[in-house]
Amino acid sequence: MVSSLLLDFYELTMAQSYFVYKQDTRATFDLFVREMPENRSYLVACGLDDILNYLKNFKFSREELSFLKKQKLFSDDFLSYLGKIRFKGDLWALPEGTVFFANEPLIRVTGSIIEAQLVESYLLNTINLQTMIASKASRVVTSAAGRGVFDFSLRRTHGAGAGIKVSRASYLAGFSGTSNVLAGKLYNIPVAGTMAHSFVLSFKNELDSFLAYASVFPQKTILLVDTYNTKKGIENAVTIGIYLKEKGFRLHGIRLDSGDITVLSKFARKKLDKEGLKFVKIFATGNLDEFKITELIKKGSKVDNFGVGTNMGVSIDAPCLDVVYKMSEVSDESGKFIPTMKLSKDKVTYPGRKQVFRIKDKKGKAIKDILGLAGEKVNGRPLLKKIMQGGRVICKVGNLEEARNLARKNLSAFSAGLKEVNTPYKYPVEISPGLKKLKNSLAAALRKRQ
Amino acid sequence: MVSSLLLDFYELTMAQSYFVYKQDTRATFDLFVREMPENRSYLVACGLDDILNYLKNFKFSREELSFLKKQKLFSDDFLSYLGKIRFKGDLWALPEGTVFFANEPLIRVTGSIIEAQLVESYLLNTINLQTMIASKASRVVTSAAGRGVFDFSLRRTHGAGAGIKVSRASYLAGFSGTSNVLAGKLYNIPVAGTMAHSFVLSFKNELDSFLAYASVFPQKTILLVDTYNTKKGIENAVTIGIYLKEKGFRLHGIRLDSGDITVLSKFARKKLDKEGLKFVKIFATGNLDEFKITELIKKGSKVDNFGVGTNMGVSIDAPCLDVVYKMSEVSDESGKFIPTMKLSKDKVTYPGRKQVFRIKDKKGKAIKDILGLAGEKVNGRPLLKKIMQGGRVICKVGNLEEARNLARKNLSAFSAGLKEVNTPYKYPVEISPGLKKLKNSLAAALRKRQ
Repeated sequence: MVSSLLLDFYELTMAQSYFVYKQDTRATFDLFVREMPENRSYLVACGLDDILNYLKNFKFSREELSFLKKQKLFSDDFLSYLGKIRFKGDLWALPEGTVFFANEPLIRVTGSIIEAQLVESYLLNTINLQTMIASKASRVVTSAAGRGVFDFSLRRTHGAGAGIKVSRASYLAGFSGTSNVLAGKLYNIPVAGTMAHSFVLSFKNELDSFLAYASVFPQKTILLVDTYNTKKGIENAVTIGIYLKEKGFRLHGIRLDSGDITVLSKFARKKLDKEGLKFVKIFATGNLDEFKITELIKKGSKVDNFGVGTNMGVSIDAPCLDVVYKMSEVSDESGKFIPTMKLSKDKVTYPGRKQVFRIKDKKGKAIKDILGLAGEKVNGRPLLKKIMQGGRVICKVGNLEEARNLARKNLSAFSAGLKEVNTPYKYPVEISPGLKKLKNSLAAALRKRQ
Repeated sequence: MVSSLLLDFYELTMAQSYFVYKQDTRATFDLFVREMPENRSYLVACGLDDILNYLKNFKFSREELSFLKKQKLFSDDFLSYLGKIRFKGDLWALPEGTVFFANEPLIRVTGSIIEAQLVESYLLNTINLQTMIASKASRVVTSAAGRGVFDFSLRRTHGAGAGIKVSRASYLAGFSGTSNVLAGKLYNIPVAGTMAHSFVLSFKNELDSFLAYASVFPQKTILLVDTYNTKKGIENAVTIGIYLKEKGFRLHGIRLDSGDITVLSKFARKKLDKEGLKFVKIFATGNLDEFKITELIKKGSKVDNFGVGTNMGVSIDAPCLDVVYKMSEVSDESGKFIPTMKLSKDKVTYPGRKQVFRIKDKKGKAIKDILGLAGEKVNGRPLLKKIMQGGRVICKVGNLEEARNLARKNLSAFSAGLKEVNTPYKYPVEISPGLKKLKNSLAAALRKRQ
């Protein structure tokens, strides 16, 4: 369970000001990505599962309140109010696995301005990591064109928690499994692994190490062949493959971790096939990502499965999303919601309660999205679903397997251009007439008033 | 507490093979950074505190073992052995805050090959995040040239855990505080914050919002001035500053979050000073990092404190370290340690049990490091300290304040060139004669044997 103190300090100081001046004020906030990262043509929504757990359990413990009291900034009245606070707002969201684009809210919160503001940091933090990784991982899955891809990133993710969420997000995006055992246990993701160079080094020679491993796991052995000399390593693996075959077992695979993977995989495939070991799979690892996998496949590499680590696990070419949480309306004294927007240079936001509509052609291909107002009549399927009402989850939220299916299905509705890894593709997101009108009139009024 | 299942699956399969073949084998592993990231001239060791907690508590619960049993790969003998396993090895490490360089082990583990192997993933994961962030944050601190720098990165770090560790690592590197309240509580780091645009937007106009905040926190108010028009916002802040002054309070600061910070900060300083508000501090935020801060200062910006978020919190120009954990020696049947190394192309490692020596000139300036063998006679201060023996911590390990002091002191011993933010600097790390000899002879022997 995440502590409710995991927030930016200003959420609390603003909350106390709201407590004094605006205890009954309600507001709507949109969580969205302001601009697409350079190498991303689409994003995959991920993180809602954790957010719902967080919101359901949002409260400050006695001990946390006493820490806040020590800051000598908060009144007893406010702290006692904080002790009773629970999240009682409404939440609309894109289900996990939904493909979406810049400026489209993936979460919309309406509720007490205090509650809606206090949860900001956690919501941003969670969506930033998980959506960033699901979006990167989706590209890796596409690049592998049906071959298996495994998450081997734990050692380079940003801490233990990130490691677990990366396994989940990448599985959601279509990865076949993970090396992270704890993530496998928590989310029922298949776990996979091979062996390390240190294992080979710890034996007198490579063949001894291969034999030792194969004897313990005769049906699950993947031999790492590049500790000393890769071609020699492949030959040693062939020896083990023949040995296992004679005993009625099948060597599962070999792993290439350095050198020219195309050349070495062709060499290995040939050697293996020649000895009747067609069933032995070739795994490739070593700084792989969607760009390198695309190139390897284009060059005819004989790789069956890719192990992808650091580059996916930290989303190396875009290690953060430009994700923000912006107020779009606020209630006045009578309780009526008034649209609001930020006017500062280059960072203008869209006002009002919004919905995302996806327009498909007759064949079911997605052709454009329209960002419109929630009540507006727009032809197209609305993507934001009402998930929480008054702080209670009101619909079944898809589990990981369902989110994984949704991601696959969603993505298949887009043209091939969107999924092209090397060429950015600009999917059209239009602004509806209603939203355009609201934005222009509000901007004019605000400029005048200031 | 971190679950001991937070590891790569292959650690467990290798462990079972070791259990069958090498239960009494001992080995030494070095944890080091293979190559410096492009924009880093030095690294700051961080993460040991968590690693010691992890190692002290390393064990598999009954429930974890039953999950492993379900994988249908592990023998009952092995699982029962695993249930009894504790970390009983020796650990040498660079104390947190130590400045170090590529190829220098920052952690050295000697122990049962099974135990030493099982802890690999967590050790790498922890050092990768925390050392990466401390190293990036140290550059930010240097660039601010004595001005305050605050960690505002929580919303964009890779999850909740990363957010907390980033606060700690950046404070260790010299940051003045963090916006992350939970990190402040856990590590006794000063917490700080201002206000968000949504706060300003929720009031009828900017001045009302400023007044509301200032009335609640008359001594701690920092006003965000760019929601509508920044110059007008600065004038509104001046109004509040005068109002507070008349009531006997001091407006703490204003925050600039967009636009030309140099121009706006000069404008603000002038306006504030003219009204006798010299004490009001100017904070700048908005995609800042060491490069932008250097530039702002060079251009004469009147900024007193910098809030640094995403770019530091994800170490955006180097979001991972090339950190590895490599076996350097392994015991033979008689229990004698035999040096080992990996020979594969471009990824050769240094064999044997090693120590890092730092050589200083008469004035106390660090002039070079020497990577040598642990027993070797080298003039210079050995940096790796023995921290654990037989799984027990045998020395007082510095707390966060001590590590922060060590980082500052350590860094001050290096020439200015090392700390230059825009120009990479190659600090010399030499290989000792003893290590060179061992490496060459072992490489020759290995090539011959293979």
